[in-house]
Amino acid sequence: MFKEILENVNKRNPLVHCITNYVTVNDVANVILASGASPIMADDLNEVEEITSICTSLVINIGTLNQRSIQAMLLAGKKADRLKHSIVLDPVGAGASALRTDTAFDLLKNIHFTVIRGNSSEIKTISKRSSTTKGVDASSSDAITVQNLKKNVLFAKTLSKDTGSIIAITGAIDIIADDKNAYIIRNGHPLMSKVTGTGCMLSGLIAAFAGANPDDILKATAAAVCTMGLSGEIAYNKIKQIEAGTSSYRTFIIDAISNMTYDTLKGGAKIEII
Amino acid sequence: MFKEILENVNKRNPLVHCITNYVTVNDVANVILASGASPIMADDLNEVEEITSICTSLVINIGTLNQRSIQAMLLAGKKADRLKHSIVLDPVGAGASALRTDTAFDLLKNIHFTVIRGNSSEIKTISKRSSTTKGVDASSSDAITVQNLKKNVLFAKTLSKDTGSIIAITGAIDIIADDKNAYIIRNGHPLMSKVTGTGCMLSGLIAAFAGANPDDILKATAAAVCTMGLSGEIAYNKIKQIEAGTSSYRTFIIDAISNMTYDTLKGGAKIEII
Amino acid sequence: MFKEILENVNKRNPLVHCITNYVTVNDVANVILASGASPIMADDLNEVEEITSICTSLVINIGTLNQRSIQAMLLAGKKADRLKHSIVLDPVGAGASALRTDTAFDLLKNIHFTVIRGNSSEIKTISKRSSTTKGVDASSSDAITVQNLKKNVLFAKTLSKDTGSIIAITGAIDIIADDKNAYIIRNGHPLMSKVTGTGCMLSGLIAAFAGANPDDILKATAAAVCTMGLSGEIAYNKIKQIEAGTSSYRTFIIDAISNMTYDTLKGGAKIEII
Repeated sequence: MFKEILENVNKRNPLVHCITNYVTVNDVANVILASGASPIMADDLNEVEEITSICTSLVINIGTLNQRSIQAMLLAGKKADRLKHSIVLDPVGAGASALRTDTAFDLLKNIHFTVIRGNSSEIKTISKRSSTTKGVDASSSDAITVQNLKKNVLFAKTLSKDTGSIIAITGAIDIIADDKNAYIIRNGHPLMSKVTGTGCMLSGLIAAFAGANPDDILKATAAAVCTMGLSGEIAYNKIKQIEAGTSSYRTFIIDAISNMTYDTLKGGAKIEII
Repeated sequence: MFKEILENVNKRNPLVHCITNYVTVNDVANVILASGASPIMADDLNEVEEITSICTSLVINIGTLNQRSIQAMLLAGKKADRLKHSIVLDPVGAGASALRTDTAFDLLKNIHFTVIRGNSSEIKTISKRSSTTKGVDASSSDAITVQNLKKNVLFAKTLSKDTGSIIAITGAIDIIADDKNAYIIRNGHPLMSKVTGTGCMLSGLIAAFAGANPDDILKATAAAVCTMGLSGEIAYNKIKQIEAGTSSYRTFIIDAISNMTYDTLKGGAKIEII
Repeated sequence: MFKEILENVNKRNPLVHCITNYVTVNDVANVILASGASPIMADDLNEVEEITSICTSLVINIGTLNQRSIQAMLLAGKKADRLKHSIVLDPVGAGASALRTDTAFDLLKNIHFTVIRGNSSEIKTISKRSSTTKGVDASSSDAITVQNLKKNVLFAKTLSKDTGSIIAITGAIDIIADDKNAYIIRNGHPLMSKVTGTGCMLSGLIAAFAGANPDDILKATAAAVCTMGLSGEIAYNKIKQIEAGTSSYRTFIIDAISNMTYDTLKGGAKIEII
């Protein structure tokens, strides 16, 4: 189902403008390259509008936000919005500090995001200014489970309707929803939470896929989430064979993204639409 | 001897606030995750007090300090101090510039650090505002050797008494001291100096171990130093087998930290208390 | 031909001051260490002159420039210039925004660079304030090919005469030129473009080699370019054997740099002087 989505990334080689945190920025750049797209990182007020203009998509990640970068996010986001680019918001740690929550809200007020991707705590913060976020990880009380799946799908669809954005809530079970349809994705491996930035990498990947597939953002987002999760599974099989640890795991996740083919994705995707 | 220390990291999963340099920040985050703790990086004045409040420990690393981050370090440190959190200072390059030396002194004047970790040149700078630091590496004339070990243990204990902090001087031979006791640790491998940030990673690891073991900081610090050094040895054996280089070495060090068990640490620790 | 160049890096262990982007800074530091030199990253106005004074070379990379770091670049560059240090400019993305192009020009007006290294689009921007740069990658219309090689060698020699700098235009075919002589280097592999920062790493490597060999900068630059390209080939052979991807490729490139010997370089260099 994702054949054309993947082909378009390689064929169109979208340029993705990233305003992202300095913790995981290198991995985000390498994941975007691994997918067949190209990244450009730029966060100075005096160039972000010009840089975003030569791109097809923008990812705004508030992981290590500061007064300077917040202004750049707003400026770049408004420009990308006017240009109808694909814009992805990754509200890292929303709920963990007032600055992060307020910034996320300020961004949402000023920019129409094409996709909002976060863990369940971050997305809940986005939806109602309240949360039990523990740092930048999802709180276990917010986790999506088989028991609360239906409720969470409805929540995601409602939030999509409210924001006009595709909502991607990622964790053990992922929900990717617009106001009418939702994909449930069960790819991935728990060890991914032991590598910093798998969420940031996924947001970069979504921006790459969305930039190359502006006509089907829901499917592009689902394809990126599947690709990331399946890469986590492939990499886990690899480290088990050689008894490696979490740093090799990071390397093998990005390796798997760079080697992903449609046949591999088709064979490994654990996805349903509801 | 470190059984409970290790168990507490996994059981308590401490959240570690890091204000650290942008060179090695990704490795620091991954090492903290590999140890069983969780990192959160935040350095904006408007959120550091709130972020540090939800954590159990804080690491302040001056590797790429600037006017903005220095203010954040002071604010976060004072808050963490009031909350009785474990606070680790890594005075990277103290002695290499007046800004670094002065900032280290300013931090020490305003914040009570639980642990101060540096190479011998940095710790000597801390103790007397004079040094022969060459960049961010220890000067060979400052190195701890079998010949000057006794003198350096006394120096560390005296500095611990003066500062009220555990002192960790790391290099070929490591000294971890409070005002009465000192551990001598001989784990590690010279090739670790060819990977950027092994010191920064260790400081993050100490903050993780100390955050989970506030009642025995000396032992927690020694356990972290042993874990790092032994991981350097395990990783070295691995790259020798496959004729790899320094980047694989970095990967395998973090892998070894993520795979470390009490039995491995017990079997490999080269530690004595004097 | 590069025996002494390589020996000097290990013997003199030059300290390289880097003001570089936060995307690839960790790889730059690790590549400099892998080569036998030592890196120090510092970009605060209040310390850059002091830090650069204890070094033998400086690399200025405008990859994620901002108002603060631009001032630090100018200050550090002028100081290093007065001290006759080797200074390398990497004008990342010059041509992609007015800020980048103007900053590159401002740096060139105020600082005499020993070496300028960029892709063909960036170097063309440097030479004439016009370009078809796509983001930070070279535009294919600017690429050096067998057909336009002679013309580009003449262009590089002329630009070297105008600027007084060694010019290194890197891509599938590399040209390293002063005003009279040029090396043509055909090492490297196309997959290197799928790893972020191979250009930044090379600029760091050039600064390391130039810092250790101030009397023969042209040859030192060519040796660094050969080392990087050959490492890309060695790493490619390695990932092919184990069916790895682009992240392993990054690791193996740095591994190869750390394991590079004169014999390996001599055997693998694809270089001619014209």
